[in-house]
This record gives sequence, structure tokens and C-alpha cells, in this order.
Amino acid sequence: MSEVMDGLPDIEQIRTAATRIAPHARVTPVLRSATLDALSGAELYFKCEHLQRGGAFKFRGACNAVWALSDAQAAHGVVTHSSGNHGNALALAAATRGIAAHVVVPEGAVRAKVEAIERAGAILHRCAPTQAAREAMAAEVQGRTGAVMVHPYADTRVMAGQGTLALELLQQAAGLDALITPVGGGGLASGVAIAAHAIDAGLALFGAEPQGADDAARSLAQGRRVTTIVPDTICDGLRALIGESNLEALRIHRVELITVSDAETVAAMQLIWSELKQVVEVSSATVLAAILQQRERFAGRRVGVVITGGNVDLQALPW
Amino acid sequence: MSEVMDGLPDIEQIRTAATRIAPHARVTPVLRSATLDALSGAELYFKCEHLQRGGAFKFRGACNAVWALSDAQAAHGVVTHSSGNHGNALALAAATRGIAAHVVVPEGAVRAKVEAIERAGAILHRCAPTQAAREAMAAEVQGRTGAVMVHPYADTRVMAGQGTLALELLQQAAGLDALITPVGGGGLASGVAIAAHAIDAGLALFGAEPQGADDAARSLAQGRRVTTIVPDTICDGLRALIGESNLEALRIHRVELITVSDAETVAAMQLIWSELKQVVEVSSATVLAAILQQRERFAGRRVGVVITGGNVDLQALPW
Repeated sequence: MSEVMDGLPDIEQIRTAATRIAPHARVTPVLRSATLDALSGAELYFKCEHLQRGGAFKFRGACNAVWALSDAQAAHGVVTHSSGNHGNALALAAATRGIAAHVVVPEGAVRAKVEAIERAGAILHRCAPTQAAREAMAAEVQGRTGAVMVHPYADTRVMAGQGTLALELLQQAAGLDALITPVGGGGLASGVAIAAHAIDAGLALFGAEPQGADDAARSLAQGRRVTTIVPDTICDGLRALIGESNLEALRIHRVELITVSDAETVAAMQLIWSELKQVVEVSSATVLAAILQQRERFAGRRVGVVITGGNVDLQALPW
Repeated sequence: MSEVMDGLPDIEQIRTAATRIAPHARVTPVLRSATLDALSGAELYFKCEHLQRGGAFKFRGACNAVWALSDAQAAHGVVTHSSGNHGNALALAAATRGIAAHVVVPEGAVRAKVEAIERAGAILHRCAPTQAAREAMAAEVQGRTGAVMVHPYADTRVMAGQGTLALELLQQAAGLDALITPVGGGGLASGVAIAAHAIDAGLALFGAEPQGADDAARSLAQGRRVTTIVPDTICDGLRALIGESNLEALRIHRVELITVSDAETVAAMQLIWSELKQVVEVSSATVLAAILQQRERFAGRRVGVVITGGNVDLQALPW
């Protein structure tokens, strides 16, 4: 099974994903803070996916992809090239089904993340730190083992899995007016947009993007996918270029992008740590940074705020 | 009303406290971690009081004390001498009843904590940084205003309030075998011991104390209150000497004390941050440090672990 599967999921696929991952994924809590409400002038409902298995929302998509396979497909395992939260999530998800997870890891990847992927039971495949080498190695593993490729975001099953987060959040926090997620490759933003609008077409959708990796904002503005950007941001989880179908979802669902500086993001990260008492990674703080930067757009609204991950190197905090 | 009120509360007073504070206090969540379970060999149920109002369990006791007052008493406000979490909690609790909170603050107290107390609406009274000056200033304020003294731990109402945490935890996590709290002045440990044993007399109770402030452990060992210790620990929340009645509660309820080094505590703090993704203060990590130090005493048991607070200076982390 090597055909590309990156069409947008519909709400039924997202509901199916929710049922499929329910035995394995956590229902993550929603936290609030009177201080952050006062600072923003809005009512903020923080959806805590850093408390998801593996410390990131990525487990939802990976788990859906793994359990969507037929037994015959699953027997060959899964493969991806991601040295970050998706690689870890796929390893954890594969373990829930007892199948092999092959993870292609470029030389120079963050040691702590690679160790976590190995602890989760993945088979590591090292390669040179280029996109071409990663894809070649993944294709080689795929050809040799028959493992199914699970792309981090340009994958229908992955988008559907990430969308389950919105179903959950809209049940936990009734009457939201708006919803904001970080935007990297767009797997989360697209899945969430589809799920959220299926439930409430009037919901205002926002995406937060680092100024140093604002390809999605530029792509939406220019009406075509901008792929010439060289990411320069401390938000390591948001450096991926947005996928073609992911971008299409943002356009269809009128997701408004807000770009934030790394300094704004780090300040917001400290607020989340000190006020919500939650250890979240820097990419997760872009959403609060966007809300505080564009106070007048959010003031008076009930806003769902997706916290994406909490895998932080405590020895190298960005302040 | 200036008489000393430091007799031990009974379970009825603790149940009354639970009803009294319910409109104001949060039901804090219980978190778990597969990694920390594996490390300890036990099943750990972390009771997250750093997510309580004011970022610490102290709000429970302060709130009970404030709402236990008659209207005539309350009209004069409350007073305490604490520049830490209790001062902040009393200010927040007084605000829920719309009465004055006087907080005596010694020169040299941590600026961030003093600012938080001020933000919470307290009237600050500065004094020299000695125990005698603090008590004299508190007595002066009490005499002048008629405010009711609310001691941080040697106070029946405060102990009863802290005990409500155990009622809540034992409902949230059924079938616990053991329970561990940090021990400073002993308000928490005594309230929790009384509440927990009223519900399940077979529960094993533990207290964690810094080696550099091990007056409770020495007091229990010697059968009398040891007051000659000069605290030397980074656990700023656990430097107080244990109160007379608090010690009595530990003795009656056979609370076993475990002393931990600051290095063990800091290592445990990092584990809580990275695995539970929770920002907890250093004093809160003594409990996990004790469990990991005495692995064989906890392995195989279901242990309630009380996380006491999350008020941390992010600019001055102890690693």
C-alpha cells in the first residue's frame, strides 16, 4: 500500500477515528486561568494535549493511522521520517497494536527526542540530515519491509485523528466562539477545522504561526503554496512547510493566520508555565502569543486554545 | 478573639470545612504517569494542589478559617504573618468574603511572592526579618484592628481545611494503600492524617521532610518537639518548625517520616516537570524523592502523592 492518501477527511472519518482511538488515547483536560482571562480580556479554554500519551496531540493521528490498517497491512508495520513528536507518537501507537514502527532519524536530531522514540519501541534508521536522504531512506525501508508510510500531516488518517481533539474540546467547553491552534505542517489545523465547522459552522477559526516560518500565512495570502521559505524560529515543532491538502482545508474553512515573533512566544510560554502551571513546549505558546498580540480580535469571546505538546528539554529553556 | 485555637480537628470539623469551602475552592485533578509508576514500582496518584486557587493547598485552610468566622468577627478582618503561600491564600480567601486581610511581611521576603499577596488585595505590614518582630507586628495589628489571627498551621480551622484534600483524594482514587505529604509546619500532614484515617484506618501514612529541616523526624524519634534546628534547605515551603498539636497528630496517626536531600528533591522535581508536565515548586517534589529513595517501602502499593504548590520563580530554577 504505497499510494498517496492525503485527501481531506470528512466528519464521519473523524468520528470513526474518535471511536477507533478511544481505547488508547487520553481524554485530555481543559484548564482555565483567571489571570490569563484578565490579561486577554477573553475567556480562554486551554485544551491540554501536552497531557496526551507521548506528551503531544500527535498520538491521536498516529493511533488512528495504525488502527485503520487491515490486519494484512498492519503485519508489515509502519514507517515515518520524523525525529520529533510524530515519530514518538507512531512508535507508541504501533506498540498498542503490537506491530513494528520504523522511524527514519536524520543525524543531528535532538538526542532526547530520539531516545524517547527508541524507548517507545521503534526501530531507528539513521540517515543524512537532508529532506532527500530522509525520503530515500523511508522509501528504502518501505520497499524492503512492506511497512505502511504514515506521513506526519499530509495523510487523511492522521488529519482525521488530529480532528478528534476538536470533537472532544467542543463537548468539554460548550458555547465557544472561536478556536485557535498552532500551524506547522497543518495536520492539526486542518483536522480541527473540518471537525469544528461540522459541529458549529459559525465558529471563528484561527492559526498561530511563527514569523520565521510563516509559509502558511504567505500561502493563504498569495493563493498558492509558498515553498521557498527557510524556517528560522525556535518553535521546532512548527518548522514544517504546510501540506497541499492541509492548506486547502485552511482556505475552505477561512482559518485566519496570525504570525508571532519568537520573543512574543517565549513570553507567552512563561505565562502558561507560571499561571497554568503547565510545562508546555515553545511551539504550544504561539497560540497565547497570538491572542495577546491581537487582543481586540479575541476580547469578549470564548476561545478554545489548543496546547499541542509538552516535550521540553529542561536543561535548555529559552529564557 | 485572641485565644489560641490549635486543638486537632475531628472528622466532622473537616467535613464541615469541605462544605464551607466548596463554593470557593477548586476540586483539583489527580494525575498519573506510566513512566513514574515504572520508576517507582508503585501506582502513584498525584493530587494536584498546585492547581488550587493561589497555586497551593493553603487556600483550603485559609478559606475555612475565613468562612468559619461569625459576621461580627469577620467585620474586623484577618491577620497573619507569612510571606509565602499562606499569606497569599489568606488574602484570596478574605477577598471571597469581602473582608480585610492584613499580612505581616518581613523585609527581605521574596519580591514575587509579596507582589502576589498585594495583588490578591492584602494590606501589607512590613517588619524586621525576625520571628519576634513578625509576632510583635502581628499582635500590634491584631490589637489595633481587631483582626482575627489565622496561623499558617497551628490553627484548628486551618488543619481542618487542609484535611479536606484527603476527603477529595480518597474519593477520586479508590483503594489507596498509602498516602504521602510533605511536612513543614505540619498543618497539611495533620489534617490529612485525621481525615484519611477516619475514612480508612488501615491506610499507611508517610511524610517527606528535607534533611536540612528534619525537626519533625527528630521530634518523633525523640518523643518531644525539637526546636533547636536552624533550617538549611532549598525547600522554602518546608522551613517552618512543626507545631505542637501538628506533631501530636503525626504521633497518634503513626505517620512515618522520610528525610530527603535537596539533591534528591531537585532530581524528583525535574521528573515531575518532564513526565507529569506540571510546574511544581521544589517543596512539592520531596514526596516523589522519598518514594524513589525508599522504593521497597512503596513498590506494589497504590500511593496518593500530595503535590502542594506550584509557585515557582521561572528565572531561578534550582538546576
